[in-house]
Amino acid sequence: MDAAPCPIARSLGDVGDWWSLLIVRDGLRGNRRFSEFQKSLGLAKNILAARLKKLVACGIFRLEPASDGSSYQEYVLTDKGRALNVVTAALRVWGTRWLFGNDPDAPVVLDRITGEEIVGFGFRTRSGRLVAPSEIQYVTEPIVRPSARRRRVPAGD
Amino acid sequence: MDAAPCPIARSLGDVGDWWSLLIVRDGLRGNRRFSEFQKSLGLAKNILAARLKKLVACGIFRLEPASDGSSYQEYVLTDKGRALNVVTAALRVWGTRWLFGNDPDAPVVLDRITGEEIVGFGFRTRSGRLVAPSEIQYVTEPIVRPSARRRRVPAGD
Repeated sequence: MDAAPCPIARSLGDVGDWWSLLIVRDGLRGNRRFSEFQKSLGLAKNILAARLKKLVACGIFRLEPASDGSSYQEYVLTDKGRALNVVTAALRVWGTRWLFGNDPDAPVVLDRITGEEIVGFGFRTRSGRLVAPSEIQYVTEPIVRPSARRRRVPAGD
Repeated sequence: MDAAPCPIARSLGDVGDWWSLLIVRDGLRGNRRFSEFQKSLGLAKNILAARLKKLVACGIFRLEPASDGSSYQEYVLTDKGRALNVVTAALRVWGTRWLFGNDPDAPVVLDRITGEEIVGFGFRTRSGRLVAPSEIQYVTEPIVRPSARRRRVPAGD
């Protein structure tokens, strides 16, 4: 699905299995070592190694020498990988709202500044407007549409 | 992972495979018939049937008699299922930004109200405050913490 026209399908080609997004979640929490991911996820080493290899190939993690000078390598989220926080945040808000029933020990998502509970999720424009998922417009540009294409071509081209 | 304490892990237990989220995407676009999903996804009937069965069991779709009075059944997104639009929107925003390179025909995600391009995400509290991802606090309540539990118990209990 690397060439799917739909960005959802293309995204799921990179991170569409269960474990990949949990590995990204752990990376966002600061995990970097193979052993840290393995301990957190309880995943068989061969499966974890295959998932990490794919995530590196997709440019979501990169390999770096260990920060403590040891011979280990560390898996560090790239900018592209860190940007998946929008997906883990959406899953967290949805899961918190819909999958814990009346469990009194359910996790809660709070506004750190006011302590209020989070009840919505939205997208932000450059000017700072918060846009609800229902207010999002997806534009798939047709193959031939010179005026739409022009704005993506560097000036002078 | 139905009982995982982490809402991301729990969410992925429901919708963590590739096909389930694409089925939800198609439901959000208005598909309701088995044959519509099959045509859109090009998925083997037995696999599609298994995924739809699981999504119904999870309360994401419900089965209804066909709206045209025919003997077909239709798969209709529940409120819980429609709320997954936050997750498909997040995947769409991420995929659009990171997986199309410099393709001039790449899709674009816009704010339908102002026409501005989407560049980030955020959260909303009940009082309407917009909260940046860095201002979010995730609280996993410990098993025994009476004061925290009390606020979730109905008054008079």
